[in-house]
Amino acid sequence: MTPEVEERAMRAAISASERVRGTTSPNPPVGCVLLDPLGQVVGRGATSPPGGGHAEVNALREAGERAAGGTAVVTLEPCAHTGRTPPCAVALRDAGVSRVVHAVSDPNPSASGGADLLRAAGVDVHSGLLADEVAKGPLRAWLHFVHTGRPHVTWKYAATLDGRSAAADGTSKWISSAESRAEVHQVRAAVDAIIAGTGTILSDDAQLTARDPGGNLVDRQPLRVVIGDRELPPQARVLDDTAETLRLPGGDPAAALAELARRGVVDVLLEGGPTLAGAFWRARLVDRVLAYIAPALLGSGPAALGDAGVGSISQAWRLRIEETTMSGPDVRISAVPQD
Amino acid sequence: MTPEVEERAMRAAISASERVRGTTSPNPPVGCVLLDPLGQVVGRGATSPPGGGHAEVNALREAGERAAGGTAVVTLEPCAHTGRTPPCAVALRDAGVSRVVHAVSDPNPSASGGADLLRAAGVDVHSGLLADEVAKGPLRAWLHFVHTGRPHVTWKYAATLDGRSAAADGTSKWISSAESRAEVHQVRAAVDAIIAGTGTILSDDAQLTARDPGGNLVDRQPLRVVIGDRELPPQARVLDDTAETLRLPGGDPAAALAELARRGVVDVLLEGGPTLAGAFWRARLVDRVLAYIAPALLGSGPAALGDAGVGSISQAWRLRIEETTMSGPDVRISAVPQD
Repeated sequence: MTPEVEERAMRAAISASERVRGTTSPNPPVGCVLLDPLGQVVGRGATSPPGGGHAEVNALREAGERAAGGTAVVTLEPCAHTGRTPPCAVALRDAGVSRVVHAVSDPNPSASGGADLLRAAGVDVHSGLLADEVAKGPLRAWLHFVHTGRPHVTWKYAATLDGRSAAADGTSKWISSAESRAEVHQVRAAVDAIIAGTGTILSDDAQLTARDPGGNLVDRQPLRVVIGDRELPPQARVLDDTAETLRLPGGDPAAALAELARRGVVDVLLEGGPTLAGAFWRARLVDRVLAYIAPALLGSGPAALGDAGVGSISQAWRLRIEETTMSGPDVRISAVPQD
Repeated sequence: MTPEVEERAMRAAISASERVRGTTSPNPPVGCVLLDPLGQVVGRGATSPPGGGHAEVNALREAGERAAGGTAVVTLEPCAHTGRTPPCAVALRDAGVSRVVHAVSDPNPSASGGADLLRAAGVDVHSGLLADEVAKGPLRAWLHFVHTGRPHVTWKYAATLDGRSAAADGTSKWISSAESRAEVHQVRAAVDAIIAGTGTILSDDAQLTARDPGGNLVDRQPLRVVIGDRELPPQARVLDDTAETLRLPGGDPAAALAELARRGVVDVLLEGGPTLAGAFWRARLVDRVLAYIAPALLGSGPAALGDAGVGSISQAWRLRIEETTMSGPDVRISAVPQD
């Protein structure tokens, strides 16, 4: 089998994992493609919601006996851990798979050892294929969670070219384009929780839901988290029954993330206004910035980011831009804090 | 001769014209490539400084008799006007050129008619090759000047992702990267004038010069224009002898541009701070935005744009992004106001 066949299979596994992002926490969203000895795809799988099958087991179910002698291509090292499901490494071994190619090794001490188990059974194991793509993509938040014990936080904001998130009179509908707003709904649908502050809820009556391009709620809604002490009116849309809402008083980002981690929240989208965003920056708890920069200028009005603890240029939060793309007429910038 | 040969020649003519941008005003920076009947390049030329030869004449000087029977590829319709130099259309006709391909037709009533003159002489004239590229590129400011009677204004600014041009304590060196600063010096070298307000001169002691990557002044310096009434100290760097400096009191953008137009200034770079930029926006006198967005966050400090006359989101200045590129670690965005 050529390396190209395995790389193509890994890309398919990545796609499969992306499709289940937001539904698997605290488990990782993994994708698996099974190839028969001739390199034909005989099974595909991705992680089911907690308690359901892992990616490998789901793919084996589709492949049946055709997996024997074939290759399993999987985004994460198969687990050797018996949790709510039996170890995937054992399942692959028992199915007679002769080669396993995984992208990322399992950093989780309680689950790792799958590669060793497979090698001991005579299976040819190869690690690292498209590892960077997987580690920065579908497994990014989960790896962060495993390494740090806290959820991965993406601060998303929309602003004009001059950094304003609303006009002087507070009007802000709509700073960014329909394309960007649709994209943000896709981002929301793939995270575990959306965080906003009470101030944003009170000023915008934000519902914090994920909708499809037709405006309909998607099946699975992320947890809505409202941080802060201000009282919300009972008719606030964030309190409706479209999704679960968690109130976290106090406004301390670290405490909020600890509580979310306890609830198995791995991937968080921080929406909220400049005050809450500033608090997260001061606490060094932003892991990624997702900025939708609209080609417009206001010259006045609230800024996207409030007090971030920076007084002098040498204290500026420095980022590294990961990607710049167009989102309709807007510029979409993904950036990560520099160490 | 194939169309590809003429298109390649036009790209070479565009390159030649780009190299003289900033040195030809109030004349257009034009490029010309002469091909012999076999399609071989036999002459290249670009507009000399005012009073010198036009592009066609300079190219004919290089080609000599080899131009006979050949093709002239030129970014602008050859002029039919006797000014400080004889008409280029006549020069091409007299050199025996059999075909003329130009990108943009001359919109200047006093110079146009060149294509007609050539056609009347039996020359095959083709118009429009790469016209858009030329009109948005080297001839952009000049065409704007001819159509509106006022210089083309590019507002250049550097800011963080959250729109700040300095930290809370006023420190701003350096918001943008070394790569971006070097690029700005190239932009400066290609314009006729740089405008700043007295406030920026007083706060930054800006010299408003164009330097090469080694830090040395380039040969030709744009006119330095300082708008505003505040007094400058005699030792201000903008008043040194590296380039001419024009003081324009009052601070009215329209009056300033009228004075610059009178002096033959066609292409202007507006640097200066948020107040002056706001004044130009309120006067609807910005033709292009060139933003260097640094991957940094400040959360406080002065914004890049001050009062631009916008109170509500519906009054926002809406732009269209022409191009987004990386400039070192920064995002460089070129945008134009929407009609």
